[in-house]
Amino acid sequence: RINQERLWQSLMELAQIGATEKGGVKRLALTDLDKQGRDLVLSWGRAAGLSITIDQIGNVFMRRAGRNPALPPVMSGSHIDTQPTGGKFDGNYGVLAALEVIRTLNEHQIETEAPLEVAFWTNEEGSRFVPVMMGSGVFCGAFSLEHAYAATDTAGLSVKDELQRIGYLGEQVPGQHPVGAYFEAHIEQGPVLEDAGKVIGVVPGVLGLSWYDCTVTGMEAHAGPTPMGLRKDALQVATGIMQEVVNIGNRYPPYGRGTVGMVQVFPNSRNVIPGEVKFSMDLRNVTAELLDTMHQEILAFIEQRSRETGLRILAERVSYYPPCPFHPDCVEAVRTATAALGYSTMDVVSGAGHDAIYTARLAPSGMIFVPCKDGISHNEIEDAQPAHLAAGCNVLLHAMLASAGV
Amino acid sequence: RINQERLWQSLMELAQIGATEKGGVKRLALTDLDKQGRDLVLSWGRAAGLSITIDQIGNVFMRRAGRNPALPPVMSGSHIDTQPTGGKFDGNYGVLAALEVIRTLNEHQIETEAPLEVAFWTNEEGSRFVPVMMGSGVFCGAFSLEHAYAATDTAGLSVKDELQRIGYLGEQVPGQHPVGAYFEAHIEQGPVLEDAGKVIGVVPGVLGLSWYDCTVTGMEAHAGPTPMGLRKDALQVATGIMQEVVNIGNRYPPYGRGTVGMVQVFPNSRNVIPGEVKFSMDLRNVTAELLDTMHQEILAFIEQRSRETGLRILAERVSYYPPCPFHPDCVEAVRTATAALGYSTMDVVSGAGHDAIYTARLAPSGMIFVPCKDGISHNEIEDAQPAHLAAGCNVLLHAMLASAGV
Ligand SMILES: NC(=O)NCCC(=O)O
Ligand SMILES: NC(=O)NCCC(=O)O
Repeated sequence: RINQERLWQSLMELAQIGATEKGGVKRLALTDLDKQGRDLVLSWGRAAGLSITIDQIGNVFMRRAGRNPALPPVMSGSHIDTQPTGGKFDGNYGVLAALEVIRTLNEHQIETEAPLEVAFWTNEEGSRFVPVMMGSGVFCGAFSLEHAYAATDTAGLSVKDELQRIGYLGEQVPGQHPVGAYFEAHIEQGPVLEDAGKVIGVVPGVLGLSWYDCTVTGMEAHAGPTPMGLRKDALQVATGIMQEVVNIGNRYPPYGRGTVGMVQVFPNSRNVIPGEVKFSMDLRNVTAELLDTMHQEILAFIEQRSRETGLRILAERVSYYPPCPFHPDCVEAVRTATAALGYSTMDVVSGAGHDAIYTARLAPSGMIFVPCKDGISHNEIEDAQPAHLAAGCNVLLHAMLASAGV
Repeated sequence: RINQERLWQSLMELAQIGATEKGGVKRLALTDLDKQGRDLVLSWGRAAGLSITIDQIGNVFMRRAGRNPALPPVMSGSHIDTQPTGGKFDGNYGVLAALEVIRTLNEHQIETEAPLEVAFWTNEEGSRFVPVMMGSGVFCGAFSLEHAYAATDTAGLSVKDELQRIGYLGEQVPGQHPVGAYFEAHIEQGPVLEDAGKVIGVVPGVLGLSWYDCTVTGMEAHAGPTPMGLRKDALQVATGIMQEVVNIGNRYPPYGRGTVGMVQVFPNSRNVIPGEVKFSMDLRNVTAELLDTMHQEILAFIEQRSRETGLRILAERVSYYPPCPFHPDCVEAVRTATAALGYSTMDVVSGAGHDAIYTARLAPSGMIFVPCKDGISHNEIEDAQPAHLAAGCNVLLHAMLASAGV
């Protein structure tokens, strides 16, 4: 069994880097704070005797040798970047749970057949740079290194320059790093486990996701003298589309999701009819067919509104991954470990994307969920119980041992 | 008759201060550029022999003596601050038309019975500081000097500090400056004159206005794992209100206006359900009764939505002025001058607020409209024809002479 107190202390220590007044964390990818967080985790890895590799997109792998160096490592990890108003556990828990597994094995001097690795992936959140889950995406060939390098934040700073600046532009070619199996422990980020009173979520798979940037172009004009009938109000058309995004999410339960999270209005003056509105759209569902139906519906709605209003509306898809069922072997390993440890459990489909959906393209992958308070994450008040976090970490320990061989 | 070429040249010269790439002007109130604009107009006033007074809110009065110094001056003017993406004519035309009247009288050595004055008022646009029409509002007692001084821009800079910084914090107590009558020439800022093919709009009055800041508070949560039914999506509720603002504008034609110009979403991340949305609402109509009905309707709608959704919604009124009918004497003076000069004409109710609605509280006031291209203003492509601008200036000349006595 892992050390609950040590795991919790590490989480709290890492959470101080970028800590916010409201008890959350703001540690955006490739900022100075991200560098500080990375440095701290690296120092812990070194102290645990792990050898470090960094690849060209800044993914970090910390390796514990196995008896058989010819075997590919059993890997576990997640990310340490956060949302602008993020919490202490999202991602961070997966990395530190994997580290706690290593510390526990060191303490008990348990050797494994295959090597073990702790990984943390660059820019999982996608808040500062798109695409989301950038590091694991490049690693697994979902998109190219050049594409990721070229991404810029709102200030125009690029991923490549920022990697270099913080000293995490490594040398290894992404993907040229063998993986035998990948496990990721994570808070659920939803209310299902808590509602059902269960401790461990076995994750059969992850909802597919489509992200879009939408731009509505109307005509700026003065809010006073311009009669209602003569307006080309970009916001009035945009708000109709925003409402339809949510309607489409509602139309395909239980896994349909439709969200507008980001809006910019131009020129954003209170007595000017908006001439342009840009906003994001986020659609998700559990099968490729359902997600595609939602995709078709929002595009059809947009085309219809453009025809009806005469306004130009552009919707560009900026991210997509299909729904990802996890490998039966990994799902079974998690289920078996949970049963052996005697934790209450249920299956929980992940609504959030995780680095594991990309590693699943290269190696058998699986996930372990633990409850978070009120199902809330991507919020500074994100919270989780030490005992639940420890339970997830114990399941991770057993699943990794079963997979690596003792 | 005034000098069309001189008027146009002055407009073009002033428009170079803060000129934008797209041919517009960005000269926000009390910025360095506003100072440059003020300095230029002042230098022209001095060159025309005018004596200058500046009051404590930075309103500027440039006086040409009359035969009878005991008579209050006949005043004309407008403002020279602009929107963030504004044009060359809004406000600037009214100030330079008044100056052109003076230049013409000087040239022809015509003396008037009452003194004449050219005025420009501080922060008419309300883009940088609320309330809108600040200088004339303080001058006419619509709100206090202290209230105006305390207004801050988004960077936290105050009106008083900025007035001091640019050297336009004058000594005269606002309002302690007699006004016999006030005329303001302005581009229409709407499409009515152009559509009807008329040159001069006689303005019977101005629509009343209500401005609000609205805040919807929901709960931030992750866009993936949070089922639709468990969300408190502040944006979904806000967009419904935004649509209703426009619906209410549509419900009371022909003068009803409903506009949302400004929106801010928090935390504004594409995979976070918005926890808070702030936006402006702008309602207008031609009678106090209609405007009040619209006011009641939006408040009732907001209360209902708050009850239905359980979300907290605050709507605070930040500006209000009632519909303003102009003084019959001034309206007649404009009508008579237009007829004498033989211009095509019609009545046009002003949808935009103007400094004249505040001067109307102290002295008989009236306005003269000329067409602007496609009815567009508060936009960098705002445009107007030299001949139309000259026509409005000729009407102003004749109305002022009639009012001041020759
Ligand atoms: N786990 C997580 O927050 N992933 C970010 C990508 C997403 O929005 O699902
Ligand atoms: N004329 C003008 O643009 N006034 C600003 C106040 C308003 O929005 O009506």
